[in-house]
Amino acid sequence: MEGVLAGDRGVLAQAITLLESRLPSDRELAEQILEAIFPESGKSVRVGITGVPGVGKSTFIEALGTHVTEVLAEKVAVLAIDPSSQLSGGSILGDKTRMPKLSVNPRAFIRPSPARGSVGGVAQRTREAVLVCEAAGYGNIFIETVGVGQSETMAATMVDFFLLLMLAGAGDELQGIKRGIIELADLVAITKADGDNRRPAEIAQREFSRALGLFPLPPSGWPPRVMTCSASQGKGIAEIWDAVQDYARHARASGYLERRRREQNREWMHELIAQGLRERFLADPAVQAKLVELERAVVEGRTTSLGAARELLDE
Amino acid sequence: MEGVLAGDRGVLAQAITLLESRLPSDRELAEQILEAIFPESGKSVRVGITGVPGVGKSTFIEALGTHVTEVLAEKVAVLAIDPSSQLSGGSILGDKTRMPKLSVNPRAFIRPSPARGSVGGVAQRTREAVLVCEAAGYGNIFIETVGVGQSETMAATMVDFFLLLMLAGAGDELQGIKRGIIELADLVAITKADGDNRRPAEIAQREFSRALGLFPLPPSGWPPRVMTCSASQGKGIAEIWDAVQDYARHARASGYLERRRREQNREWMHELIAQGLRERFLADPAVQAKLVELERAVVEGRTTSLGAARELLDE
Repeated sequence: MEGVLAGDRGVLAQAITLLESRLPSDRELAEQILEAIFPESGKSVRVGITGVPGVGKSTFIEALGTHVTEVLAEKVAVLAIDPSSQLSGGSILGDKTRMPKLSVNPRAFIRPSPARGSVGGVAQRTREAVLVCEAAGYGNIFIETVGVGQSETMAATMVDFFLLLMLAGAGDELQGIKRGIIELADLVAITKADGDNRRPAEIAQREFSRALGLFPLPPSGWPPRVMTCSASQGKGIAEIWDAVQDYARHARASGYLERRRREQNREWMHELIAQGLRERFLADPAVQAKLVELERAVVEGRTTSLGAARELLDE
Repeated sequence: MEGVLAGDRGVLAQAITLLESRLPSDRELAEQILEAIFPESGKSVRVGITGVPGVGKSTFIEALGTHVTEVLAEKVAVLAIDPSSQLSGGSILGDKTRMPKLSVNPRAFIRPSPARGSVGGVAQRTREAVLVCEAAGYGNIFIETVGVGQSETMAATMVDFFLLLMLAGAGDELQGIKRGIIELADLVAITKADGDNRRPAEIAQREFSRALGLFPLPPSGWPPRVMTCSASQGKGIAEIWDAVQDYARHARASGYLERRRREQNREWMHELIAQGLRERFLADPAVQAKLVELERAVVEGRTTSLGAARELLDE
């Protein structure tokens, strides 16, 4: 706990490893640490960053993180929610290859996704890692997700601001983005807006602005923005971070940030209760066997969902 | 059960009343009926219809229902999910006032929303009413929701097709529609496209078509359509129903309809299990008292969500 609060990167990394452990004794220690550092957490801007593979997410995060750490001299922690990483045993490319500058930057802390478990489980570990990084003095938290599945919905329950990266030439490229993700976005950044791609990026920017204008304002009251950037040329990056800061100022002043986080914590508690009940229920071998049988009966139309649920609960 | 299967409207109404009852003895009988009629259910097109108040939902449903019952000579059941109706003790206006023609049409069966309980509870009763109406020979089920809250998400878990009604002059009018609902839509119908409003409606149609074109195809593979209509002049109504039929043919042929319903049933079973576990857990007075205390501690930042959930579960 002392090491974390002192901002020791090695201890921070160890603490997160402890959070990710499934050993009951580790888990107990992890929960003690979380309780202890909790009063020192919360003092950051939490930014979700997503986009389909190929959109240039690593390059973008490298550029944005470098801007925050080198130009503004602030600390950044980059965390991830990527349940698919369990297949590849972690990121396909290591962080040193993905983000060569940021990974050796003393003000940056990069941590790949917890590799095991359900989306919910992976997200829970990331949520806990956020608290520990904050306690270690990281005032800016980036939470990276893949942009193709449930991870975004989970990320949305733990961030203040959601940044969606998109490629120019809307249409086909959008196919990889799940319906629903666009609506989470507080800011859409059209990436790779350089060279021959600059004009298509600007057209895409106008089209998205128009399309987003058709949707109602998000509860923050801050109208989502659509911006262009070129991470490789460093263009648009400072402007995007300015927008994040503008949002944070607005949301703090209106009290929305605080309300949203309280609501997130309350919902998270209920989610953990529901999850714990399910886990303890489904851990029962008799329940497991019966569930397989009932699930088949429901899918094959031999019984109603209601009858099946009732049968399992009564048992 | 005999009365339902024979299509007796009085018995059908009584059966649904039984489904809505909270008396344990009624509930037991209701579950027996559901199991008994279940093999005869499922033979319908289930259409969700939503829109903000003022969009002309009643007039639209009256026109569409009249087209289906009088022109096509098919039976229609109109059900509703409106948890807010518990406040007004049912619909503000009775169905006879809302839908004067349809409410006296012998091929139509209109049932207001179950008035009590959570969104989930209200939706569960509606889901069960769908099965009973199908068993009574209603080949077209409309599920009406309010378009301002969670009811749409619940409706989406029980329908084959989602129809969103919108007013021309996108922008301000959209404010009432919750973000996320537009993405559920298989068809957006711009209502009141008559008189001076015809041209704005056509402009809105083009704008929405363009905006929806930016989103990926829904899993059905059927691209959402944007159409205009005037329920009062009976224009566009037949075309909208043709589109629903076209969707149903497509989804049946591809096997998507069947897959979606199986998946809905499986998810519904898991939802009922989770709900039952929560209910039985929270029915415990000691849990209730503790939960209030822990919820306050979490919202006030005195403890973590994790610690609170663990404490409650262990207790």
